[in-house]
Order: sequence, then C-alpha cells, then structure tokens
Amino acid sequence: MSNNWPLYGAIEAGGTKFVLGTGTSPINLTARHTIPTRTPGETLPEAAAWFHNQGRLSAIGIATFGPAVVDPKDGRWGRITNTPKPGWADCDLAGFFGREFGVPIGFDTDVNGAALAESRFGAGEDANSLAYVTVGTGIGGGLVLDGKAVHGAAHPEMGHIFPRRHESDAAFEGVCPTHGDCLEGLASGPAIMRRWGKSLSELPEDHAAHAVIAHYLAHLCHTIFAMSSAEVIVLGGGVMNTPGLLDRIRATERELDRGYLPAAAIHRIVKPSLGDDAGIIGALCLAMEADKGR
Amino acid sequence: MSNNWPLYGAIEAGGTKFVLGTGTSPINLTARHTIPTRTPGETLPEAAAWFHNQGRLSAIGIATFGPAVVDPKDGRWGRITNTPKPGWADCDLAGFFGREFGVPIGFDTDVNGAALAESRFGAGEDANSLAYVTVGTGIGGGLVLDGKAVHGAAHPEMGHIFPRRHESDAAFEGVCPTHGDCLEGLASGPAIMRRWGKSLSELPEDHAAHAVIAHYLAHLCHTIFAMSSAEVIVLGGGVMNTPGLLDRIRATERELDRGYLPAAAIHRIVKPSLGDDAGIIGALCLAMEADKGR
Repeated sequence: MSNNWPLYGAIEAGGTKFVLGTGTSPINLTARHTIPTRTPGETLPEAAAWFHNQGRLSAIGIATFGPAVVDPKDGRWGRITNTPKPGWADCDLAGFFGREFGVPIGFDTDVNGAALAESRFGAGEDANSLAYVTVGTGIGGGLVLDGKAVHGAAHPEMGHIFPRRHESDAAFEGVCPTHGDCLEGLASGPAIMRRWGKSLSELPEDHAAHAVIAHYLAHLCHTIFAMSSAEVIVLGGGVMNTPGLLDRIRATERELDRGYLPAAAIHRIVKPSLGDDAGIIGALCLAMEADKGR
Repeated sequence: MSNNWPLYGAIEAGGTKFVLGTGTSPINLTARHTIPTRTPGETLPEAAAWFHNQGRLSAIGIATFGPAVVDPKDGRWGRITNTPKPGWADCDLAGFFGREFGVPIGFDTDVNGAALAESRFGAGEDANSLAYVTVGTGIGGGLVLDGKAVHGAAHPEMGHIFPRRHESDAAFEGVCPTHGDCLEGLASGPAIMRRWGKSLSELPEDHAAHAVIAHYLAHLCHTIFAMSSAEVIVLGGGVMNTPGLLDRIRATERELDRGYLPAAAIHRIVKPSLGDDAGIIGALCLAMEADKGR
C-alpha cells in the first residue's frame, strides 16, 4: 500500500469458508482473512468490508466452488448455477465484486485456480501441463495446458466419470445424488464413510478399503493421462492425507498402463506443493490475468 | 504454381496408405495422390518424387499414425516410435522430408490433424473445443482446445482408457495386445469381429452387439466431456458407418450424464463434416502452422 505496486484481491470461495487475500503478485500474499460461508447476503458484504480496509485494489480474482459459469461469452458469466447450497443458486459472485469495487474480475472454478497455482508456482513449475484434483467431500479436477486453464464449453467435472468397478466393491450403489456410482459416488470422503463408517485414514493399514479407493483414483489418473496427456497430476483434498494412499495410486496406475502411454516415463502423480495455499494463490493468478485483460 | 500463393504439401501417413496432397490453403486442395504404405525405404522416396513434380513447396504438414514424438522440445521429434509395423519403428518421418525439401515441417498425430481440420473447417467451426475420435482397426482421439491441438507431455491415447464393462459383456477378455480389455480392446473393429464373427454393420439391427458397442463408445464420449468439457465430439472411422450407432451412443451418453455436466445442453456428438478429407486438410493446417513458425 505504501508503494506503487498494484494490489490484487483474491477470493477462494468454498462451501464452508471464504478465504480472502491480497497480494502484489501470486507469490507475495500480503494479507489473508477467512470468513464462514453463510448466505450471499451476509458473506459477500463481509468479504467486501474486509477488502475495503486493505487499500485500493487493481483487480479481484475469484476461484469458486461450482457449478459456475466461467465462459466470458455466456451472459451468466460469473455466477454460481444450480448448487444445492441454500441461497447460492444463481448468485452473481463476479457481478457483486465488480460493482462494489469497479475493477476487473477474474473468475474460474476453485480447482482450475488451484491447477493454475500449482502449474505456475508449484508441482508443475517445470511442466507444460498439469491436472489438479481434490478428493474430499466431493471430487473435482482442473486442467492447465500450456499455461492456460481448460474450459471447453464450460469446465471439466472429473469427479463424475464412471470408473471400472473394483471386483470386491461391486455391490455398493454409491453416494452421488445424480449418478450413484460415478467416481465421486465411489471414492469421495462421504462414499468411504458410507461403506466403512470411518475415514480412510482411520481404517487400519491392512483394511481392504485402501486398495478399493486406490483403484478408483488410479483409474482417474490413468484416464487423465490418456485423455489429455497432462504431464503432472496433483492430488489434494482430505482423503489424500491418508498415509500410503498416494503410493498405492501410483503403483495401481502403473499396473493399469503397463508402460503403454507415449509419455509413461514422464507422467507423475504428486502431492500439492503449495499445500493449502493453492486456492488463494490461484485466485491471485486470476486477478492478475483479469488486470492484464487476458 | 502460376501465381504467388505459397503451395503447401500435406501427408496423411496411415498404416495401409499414404495420402499426399498440395494446397494453397487447407480448404483449397490443388492435387491429391495415394500410395500404399510399404517400407519407409520405398514409400518415403515415392512420396517425395510425387511432391517434386507438384512445384515448389513452402512447408509440409504430416499427420501420422502413431505412436509418434510430437513434442518439439524432444530430440526425437518427428519420429514414429515403437510401432509393431515392420520397418517403421524409429522412422524419422519429419527429418526425411525436412532434408529432402529444406522447408519447415509440421508434425502431429493423424487424429490431432483431423481434429484441427474438423475444428476449423468442419463440425466444430462454431465451437471453441472439439475432440475427433476414429473407431476402426484401433481407437484413437485428438483434442483441439481454443484452436490448438492438445499435446501435454506427448499426445492423448483415448483408445486406452478402461471403460466400465457392459453387464452382458463381462467375460470377453478383449483384443488389445497390451491391456486386453481397454476401450480399443473392447470396441474396435477387431474386437467386434473376435466376439461376433462379423462387423457391426453386418450384424442384424436387433443383435445385442449394438447396445454393447454403443455402451463403450458412450462411456468414451462422456469421459471426454467430463475431462475436457470439449463442446463437440466427432466420431469417425469404419465402425461408425454402422447404421443407428451414432444415435445409440448419443442416447446412452445422455442416460449416463443425466443432465449433470455444466455444458450438458451444449455438448454434441456428430459425424465428421469433412468425411475422408479431414486427415489431409489437417495435414495442410499443420503445414501452414509450420510456415508461420507457430
């Protein structure tokens, strides 16, 4: 605030909390504040009030839970769409902050934001392509190719593919309200809890659940490699804190692929390098892009 | 040849034939010639001789069967790699034509070439993203996002994902030499022939094979939509000539998705608009890109 560097605002909008931050660059976070996610009428003004106290902002980046409209050509750009979260359906997140601060707004999904951050400043710094997947209450993935987040006609929804069922897990009907036994319905935190009554990290090391969940997440990773040839996959989220899970996924993916993919020797599956900061750093990336009018 | 427009050379390098062409733009093919694929020592000089008779070329684009090295940062760029096709393993396709003609060479997979062509001049003209999948002797897919072919760490290999097995098809071991029952092992022409002794279009309309193959290809399409959010999927190749198959795939994909994906109302699955010309038009696109130094 005391110099001439532009100051950017960043919002990681999640289902349970909003993480707010300011920075002069994605890797120079100057302030951070967390508020609970209540209704838009409560949470958005509370966030705005905090930003007003931080100084003059040049742009704001928002990395949000979804589904959200991220296509700038779509008239509903910047909105949350059909979330079951009370009050948030059709919330004009980008519009609120755009009107409140009169600055450019960057807007993308939380996982695309985290993928951008890990791609530029984390696990994918030396790679041309990276997928970021969070495995927790839900499963979501973002994809960055040649430095840009992939949108296509909207944004990826990697949690809703249909992986091949594990042979010892054929009967479970899954917990996805829409699909039942899609990936999220089979391997998310709630899907684990439903089958085994505990989180994966609470189950003993020799429990069959470890192989079952590794099977599904290995299928996801192999599908990402085969579909996009992304060099690096970053696996984050609460379920990934289970000791040994990352190694099981790596081994299972290698067994599936059998060295076939043309970049088999290059692909890697890793933990987040930026830890819990990927989201807010991603939102700062979005703010800077919006400021540059990209 | 009689004016000042640059003339581009195009090669669609396939396992059974090489299609050669020249054009002043991707949509202005001025000559075309097809030669059988024999050994590199026979086929490459034959192709070169034909091009030498067409006039002075400004650049040559090659859309090739794979696996191939398409990463310009890789020292083996421009080569076919570990193909079982006799004589072609490690063949330096781009190097041969680069040395022979002293012009820039564009080089990509056949399916990325076809995806570029359909994206720019065919089924995806009005879309920002398109996948092109061929279902024939093998299954391969290319992906174009925002006008550029996706490479990642190498190139996609969409035929080698592991789709959920169809309930009536659980016992078939598949024909993929590497994976057995990956998508190509389950739904390619040879996989159909192995199970039912005929091609899909030769089997009666009420034969169970139609639902089985539509199931696997619908899973592929849904996976493409969920992974990349590509707006359009173009399905080509011999198996797709089966009457009714495209409609079955569309219906099955819709049943799978249940309107969940954020672009569910926009995504579409279509036939190639460019028919058999997608490959050679794609190769002309690659030549023009190489000429522009992109």
